[in-house]
Amino acid sequence: MTIPKTNPGNYFEDFRLGQEILHATPRTVTQGDQALYCALYGSRFAVQSSDEFARKAGFAQAPVDDLLAFHLVFGKTVPDISLNAVANLGYAEGRFGVPVYPGDTLRAVSKVIGLKENSNRQTGVVYVRSTGYNQRDEMVVEYVRWVMVRKRDPQAVVAEEVVPKTADKVAPQDLILPAGLSVSGYDPVLAGSPHFWDDYEAGESIDHVDGMTIEEAEHMSATRLYQNTAKVHFNQHTEGQGRFGRRLIYGGHIISLARSLSFNGLANAFKLVAINGGRHVAPTFAGDTIYAWSKVEEKLEIPGRKDVGALRLRILATKNQPCAGFPFKKEDGKEYDPSIVLDFDCTVILPRK
Amino acid sequence: MTIPKTNPGNYFEDFRLGQEILHATPRTVTQGDQALYCALYGSRFAVQSSDEFARKAGFAQAPVDDLLAFHLVFGKTVPDISLNAVANLGYAEGRFGVPVYPGDTLRAVSKVIGLKENSNRQTGVVYVRSTGYNQRDEMVVEYVRWVMVRKRDPQAVVAEEVVPKTADKVAPQDLILPAGLSVSGYDPVLAGSPHFWDDYEAGESIDHVDGMTIEEAEHMSATRLYQNTAKVHFNQHTEGQGRFGRRLIYGGHIISLARSLSFNGLANAFKLVAINGGRHVAPTFAGDTIYAWSKVEEKLEIPGRKDVGALRLRILATKNQPCAGFPFKKEDGKEYDPSIVLDFDCTVILPRK
Amino acid sequence: MTIPKTNPGNYFEDFRLGQEILHATPRTVTQGDQALYCALYGSRFAVQSSDEFARKAGFAQAPVDDLLAFHLVFGKTVPDISLNAVANLGYAEGRFGVPVYPGDTLRAVSKVIGLKENSNRQTGVVYVRSTGYNQRDEMVVEYVRWVMVRKRDPQAVVAEEVVPKTADKVAPQDLILPAGLSVSGYDPVLAGSPHFWDDYEAGESIDHVDGMTIEEAEHMSATRLYQNTAKVHFNQHTEGQGRFGRRLIYGGHIISLARSLSFNGLANAFKLVAINGGRHVAPTFAGDTIYAWSKVEEKLEIPGRKDVGALRLRILATKNQPCAGFPFKKEDGKEYDPSIVLDFDCTVILPRK
Repeated sequence: MTIPKTNPGNYFEDFRLGQEILHATPRTVTQGDQALYCALYGSRFAVQSSDEFARKAGFAQAPVDDLLAFHLVFGKTVPDISLNAVANLGYAEGRFGVPVYPGDTLRAVSKVIGLKENSNRQTGVVYVRSTGYNQRDEMVVEYVRWVMVRKRDPQAVVAEEVVPKTADKVAPQDLILPAGLSVSGYDPVLAGSPHFWDDYEAGESIDHVDGMTIEEAEHMSATRLYQNTAKVHFNQHTEGQGRFGRRLIYGGHIISLARSLSFNGLANAFKLVAINGGRHVAPTFAGDTIYAWSKVEEKLEIPGRKDVGALRLRILATKNQPCAGFPFKKEDGKEYDPSIVLDFDCTVILPRK
Repeated sequence: MTIPKTNPGNYFEDFRLGQEILHATPRTVTQGDQALYCALYGSRFAVQSSDEFARKAGFAQAPVDDLLAFHLVFGKTVPDISLNAVANLGYAEGRFGVPVYPGDTLRAVSKVIGLKENSNRQTGVVYVRSTGYNQRDEMVVEYVRWVMVRKRDPQAVVAEEVVPKTADKVAPQDLILPAGLSVSGYDPVLAGSPHFWDDYEAGESIDHVDGMTIEEAEHMSATRLYQNTAKVHFNQHTEGQGRFGRRLIYGGHIISLARSLSFNGLANAFKLVAINGGRHVAPTFAGDTIYAWSKVEEKLEIPGRKDVGALRLRILATKNQPCAGFPFKKEDGKEYDPSIVLDFDCTVILPRK
Repeated sequence: MTIPKTNPGNYFEDFRLGQEILHATPRTVTQGDQALYCALYGSRFAVQSSDEFARKAGFAQAPVDDLLAFHLVFGKTVPDISLNAVANLGYAEGRFGVPVYPGDTLRAVSKVIGLKENSNRQTGVVYVRSTGYNQRDEMVVEYVRWVMVRKRDPQAVVAEEVVPKTADKVAPQDLILPAGLSVSGYDPVLAGSPHFWDDYEAGESIDHVDGMTIEEAEHMSATRLYQNTAKVHFNQHTEGQGRFGRRLIYGGHIISLARSLSFNGLANAFKLVAINGGRHVAPTFAGDTIYAWSKVEEKLEIPGRKDVGALRLRILATKNQPCAGFPFKKEDGKEYDPSIVLDFDCTVILPRK
């Protein structure tokens, strides 16, 4: 008998609590990926753009964008975790570890930390902690993600039910700064802004002003670059007959666009150190124009550092709606404004005065 | 008198049997090309994706995708061989030689091995053997291709008529394995599939499941990356008034998409070693969604190797038609199913158990 | 009070004569950028394409395309010089300095050399000399550019008024050739043309034949790659309600397309050494097909060199109009033919026989 060769992906009842999954396709990151990342999002943070600037700040050379590392690790988890997913529900406890440089090879591992069948027995929620490692087995990024996955057989019995408790945010003492980080020679003129950590206030809202329209060729190229195989992003023949009639854009593409737009107002926020939470509030499609604004949720001192500080930001991205009015929730304070597509809670670091 | 400076390309009567043509623009291949190749096709074969994985298999680092080398060599031949072509008719005797690494510089040479005027005297078929070399004059890819080319002057007399005999397939003893190839440390989990050479059977059909929709910006970027200058791919102003009303997608773009889709079912087929034949059955256009399936035509032992084996595959690509039913020929067994766009006969190698 | 964080750009009354502006985001250029440049324009000049070919000509390796260096420097100036611009009016005195290689880091500086308020007091013309430097503070490209910029406050008094005198063209003795340049081993077959400097005549017109259609994803990716932040290129939501109803394509994208198309007829013009002047005659939009032709304005001997010569070219780019008839001005000799989008006066160098 011929053995079926195609990967069907895991269904809800295939996951086991505590199960560790080694994901396929290790990936060497290169300057080619950096250039593509720039061409896709127009990112302008000086540390990631210039080897010279990065070296002055204590990096070996310009590291790749933190979100590029995240997308590559996320992409690897898709064939095992979310090929049969209905929805990507949330993120928590995301931390960035050692910087990723061109030449580094990334691999990804996930551990199943929670399982909860839905009452309709058609689907269940899988909670995983996914970790990306470089070729020296150093952690480059880790995060908890929960995702609603179809059952193959609605009758299948899934005994285990554990909903893990995740932290609301990554604590300052748990943030990882790059070894050797030094901002004593940091040049704010070259970096593009005079505003240091000290200049920001908790509660402050910043409109990032600019808008960026997305094309099909762009989000598909990005998602392929990340070797993310989720079908909904690539196949107009199928999606044209589906729920939206359109290819759905990878949610991470919107995160990267919002982060890139945030340069205008946060140019010195040179590194993402944590993803405290995140929600893809509404789908985006080619032709949509993405805008963003940020709210400074907290100003955080980093234990032992007087030279750099952290900001916990809530970055809100909208589609086809400028953010001068800081759109967020409807009057009831519960539902999101219909323009919101992303609510992303992250922590960034900036030089202090 | 001013000398005309523009390259008009060769017409059928310009070719001579035995003529050797050195093609222009040598090209250094880089990690930038690798990243773009990934962004264009989403390829996930571990050897080409990871320096670490490749080194364990005996490569110096991750080699560029075999088809990227093919497209670069093919592209160089276009201004001399097929600028005045009506149709690309077929391929044979394609072999891949030494791996191509970032930093290698490729050049291409073609030899005219056949000429046959068509009875209408408007066109003729040119047969060439094209070879790509690296900077050490080592062969990286070679193939026979025949193409129908316009005559400049229908009255021109073309004395020579030779139709070369080409092999139906490249014999196992003629396949070239990379020097130092070793699969003793091959990790099928990282590679993405537990199925080794031993698990495949002659006659087996594999649906590659996924579909990929093509955008204009993608196929044009790919074809420019290969420095392929065939006009029909780039000029909507002219093509809009032509036979299809559309820009025609480079046939090689479909080959790469099909090979990339074939990962799902053939993840351990880590290297293309031969192109036995190939036919672009129907044109494709932006907006088409490409699917693919493969038939294992033969299981081949490679002389002297017990660790790797070869599969001769027939990869069929369709447009806007999933391949679960393995579409191929119509009931008469002669004409192709109208969904088929590519019939590609190639040989790949896989680890053995 | 919260300090506003967003960069509003400079308005006309913010500029001061003699003011020097250090522009943000230094940028390390990589082989990734080279690959993207190739994918965007299909450039085929051998010196920029092949490390081997470049080394034989005295370069350290394949330098990046001269226009890629120009675009990167230009892009850096946008947030400070032209974020509030109404129109980019012209270029003069452009010179290319030391070659840019992968690994070099570019930064840009502009000096305000002229200011002239318009009579309506709503806008004024700013003249800047912008210079790009590498990490060794060597000049890689410099040029004068003048641009019409809005006033924040029409009533603001701008005392200074200086219109600088710029040269009509860069003189041969001011052209900078790469150190070590040698064409004694230059291979015209590999380069793609038998026509050397000696074969061109002043007054000669060359139709570059081919046409290239532009997609939204392409020009946006290019402009982001250059970290050029001009809003009109990216935001369909806003531009859809604007003057053209469309995103406007960055003028430099057309310059690069025209230069790339000029390979067919000028394959040995291996380096751009001067931008004598340039005018974006009409806007271009996605869907337009760009054609180009060149007029040889002058044949220039380079002092001290018998091996290479220069050509001053006027490159005309059209949209949706082939250039076999060399479209230029209307019968009155003043207005441009409506198909013309670019009139670019540059100097290139070629080997001599």
